[in-house]
Amino acid sequence: MLITLTTDFGVSSPYVAAMKGSLLSSYASARIVDLTHSIAPQNIRQAAVILADVAPFFPPGTLHVLVVDPGVGTERRIIYVEMGEQRYLAPDNGVLSYLAQKTPPHFIVEITEAKFWRLQVSNTFHGRDIFAPVAAQLLAGIESADLGRVTNQMLCLDWPTPQFLADEIVGAVLLVDSFGNLITNLPIADLQTWLGSAQLRIAMAGHEIVGLQVSYGQRKPDELIALGDSQGRLELAVVNGSAAAVLRLQPGDEVRIGRLISKPS
Amino acid sequence: MLITLTTDFGVSSPYVAAMKGSLLSSYASARIVDLTHSIAPQNIRQAAVILADVAPFFPPGTLHVLVVDPGVGTERRIIYVEMGEQRYLAPDNGVLSYLAQKTPPHFIVEITEAKFWRLQVSNTFHGRDIFAPVAAQLLAGIESADLGRVTNQMLCLDWPTPQFLADEIVGAVLLVDSFGNLITNLPIADLQTWLGSAQLRIAMAGHEIVGLQVSYGQRKPDELIALGDSQGRLELAVVNGSAAAVLRLQPGDEVRIGRLISKPS
Amino acid sequence: MLITLTTDFGVSSPYVAAMKGSLLSSYASARIVDLTHSIAPQNIRQAAVILADVAPFFPPGTLHVLVVDPGVGTERRIIYVEMGEQRYLAPDNGVLSYLAQKTPPHFIVEITEAKFWRLQVSNTFHGRDIFAPVAAQLLAGIESADLGRVTNQMLCLDWPTPQFLADEIVGAVLLVDSFGNLITNLPIADLQTWLGSAQLRIAMAGHEIVGLQVSYGQRKPDELIALGDSQGRLELAVVNGSAAAVLRLQPGDEVRIGRLISKPS
Repeated sequence: MLITLTTDFGVSSPYVAAMKGSLLSSYASARIVDLTHSIAPQNIRQAAVILADVAPFFPPGTLHVLVVDPGVGTERRIIYVEMGEQRYLAPDNGVLSYLAQKTPPHFIVEITEAKFWRLQVSNTFHGRDIFAPVAAQLLAGIESADLGRVTNQMLCLDWPTPQFLADEIVGAVLLVDSFGNLITNLPIADLQTWLGSAQLRIAMAGHEIVGLQVSYGQRKPDELIALGDSQGRLELAVVNGSAAAVLRLQPGDEVRIGRLISKPS
Repeated sequence: MLITLTTDFGVSSPYVAAMKGSLLSSYASARIVDLTHSIAPQNIRQAAVILADVAPFFPPGTLHVLVVDPGVGTERRIIYVEMGEQRYLAPDNGVLSYLAQKTPPHFIVEITEAKFWRLQVSNTFHGRDIFAPVAAQLLAGIESADLGRVTNQMLCLDWPTPQFLADEIVGAVLLVDSFGNLITNLPIADLQTWLGSAQLRIAMAGHEIVGLQVSYGQRKPDELIALGDSQGRLELAVVNGSAAAVLRLQPGDEVRIGRLISKPS
Repeated sequence: MLITLTTDFGVSSPYVAAMKGSLLSSYASARIVDLTHSIAPQNIRQAAVILADVAPFFPPGTLHVLVVDPGVGTERRIIYVEMGEQRYLAPDNGVLSYLAQKTPPHFIVEITEAKFWRLQVSNTFHGRDIFAPVAAQLLAGIESADLGRVTNQMLCLDWPTPQFLADEIVGAVLLVDSFGNLITNLPIADLQTWLGSAQLRIAMAGHEIVGLQVSYGQRKPDELIALGDSQGRLELAVVNGSAAAVLRLQPGDEVRIGRLISKPS
């Protein structure tokens, strides 16, 4: 059975291996894929967006375990959730709520049955002591309801949606990827409908972008461009460079898009 | 058969994949888990502590291969060691000696039988040319004594132990994790016995910590706290921040713990 | 079936997991090894050298997938190539051409059959939408010619070769590894033949290296040395340090090697 791990432990952290050891000790044939361990420490929102971008590409039934868990050792709940064709195990801190906007959960269990956990549970490392052994049970085929209490509650964060005004769209940066590309919350299809026959125009920090490109290769290195990302959202990029460095934007920052209407010649 | 790899090659290094290729060429069904490749270059002590923290969580019989090997190509020995329920393959440079303090080795073989190595052994990359093919033999079930000479010798480093004085404990920083948490060499249970009804007090670099917390979530972000780590040792942490940055400490640095006795009100 | 992945996505990137999810969705039993994801963005030459250094250590028949692809979404071709005992899937941008110098391709297919790709192909992420599903077909045993058109063309970059002059050799830095070791394009065997009974001498940036060492451990920490690397090439290193930092060299930079003839005493 396939399982993915998403944490904020960092790619250098041996804590990831401790979780894998704990998992493999309870379920030796687990097939583990690292989704990412580079979530910024305690950055629940970043984890939520990345999970939503990647999880749907995995085979149906894959178990995705998330340990971005600033509340570890407090009364925060741990939940098992079924959404779409995938399964999730995570702290109930909103990390599943970006995904839940698109594919509402159809089954939620609050994890409470301590008999499935490690005998000694630390207060600082539930990834190893609770998440991993519970995931092992799920991979082994336990009835998920046996792990705790079925519930219909899950913490949901507020996610900004782009505002379509008469003469501009106000969107926001959702993610910065490892190339420095700026991924926004603006569906490219909605943007194109709004633009009609006009061209996109973004003026920001002394830079101007006009028009939408189809791929990076259409423009020269170092040019700042707008295009659709691999998830169908507006992306700002610098060809072979970093738009984040050029525009000095980070997640949550506003992006204003206008129309440029070509005069008939 | 399960095998873990610990090196100082860096997460970016393709040398790790060269080792895996070499291993899989000799034993195709090896199941490989990266323990960590982020040991600081040539830092045998760091590797020793991290190994001891993580290896015991793996299934019995797991083979742990360590290549933190500044003496590669010299006369330093390579050893296969059985300790507790786990197996280890490492240069004989002390990297197994932190673990050996708690679980003394019960079987050691010096690796000398070159017929199990790659035909051409380089002087700079024994990970690929000796460790990987020898590990493949061990996974395939070779009698470990056939790999060389049974011995009862292994190089052991000197590991500082905390000193319990009348009015203070002198401990040391053992590790800094990826969150910047400072892990000390002081067992939290021994600390609590020494404190009795008094409260812990640490005064350092213009900062003061009073009392032990149970989890990060008990205090506000940016607060400097002391708590037990996931291995039962004293840990200094900044909630959602980095204690290493605030206190400017690194492994080997001293940590002095005092008692604060509350006056009856 | 074994498959390796080489990209410039970065070790922190969740895009790697998206590729793996896409691959595993089409071929559930793929055994995936990360070759490296730390190619500098768009650095085709670096990827080409690293691939050539690592791929030959994998079992015959391994499929190596490379996604260092600045031309994604343009008319650049994607090719499947058989070289030596290994198989490769890559953009046709020269990333396979360093390897092809030593082991010429014996079979090339241009990937054109879109029916094997994801239904929706983005313009920015062919790794997930084309490479992964095509790799899944190859692992599943499809006849490779069915994936497109058999061809005998492949883009080859110009790779500098060392010049052996009467009184010096002009080589170049090929790679800087994660330790800061400088790997050159100069075969150590050819160097030794050229030197004869003389000693190597390199004078550069105020530093001087005399003679060839066999291993790092032969010299003291911080000493700048020359030795053979694990692939039989001249390497410049600082013992327990970084030659790249000391000499301020990067890939492509020239390295001039002279002879030092000892006077009879």
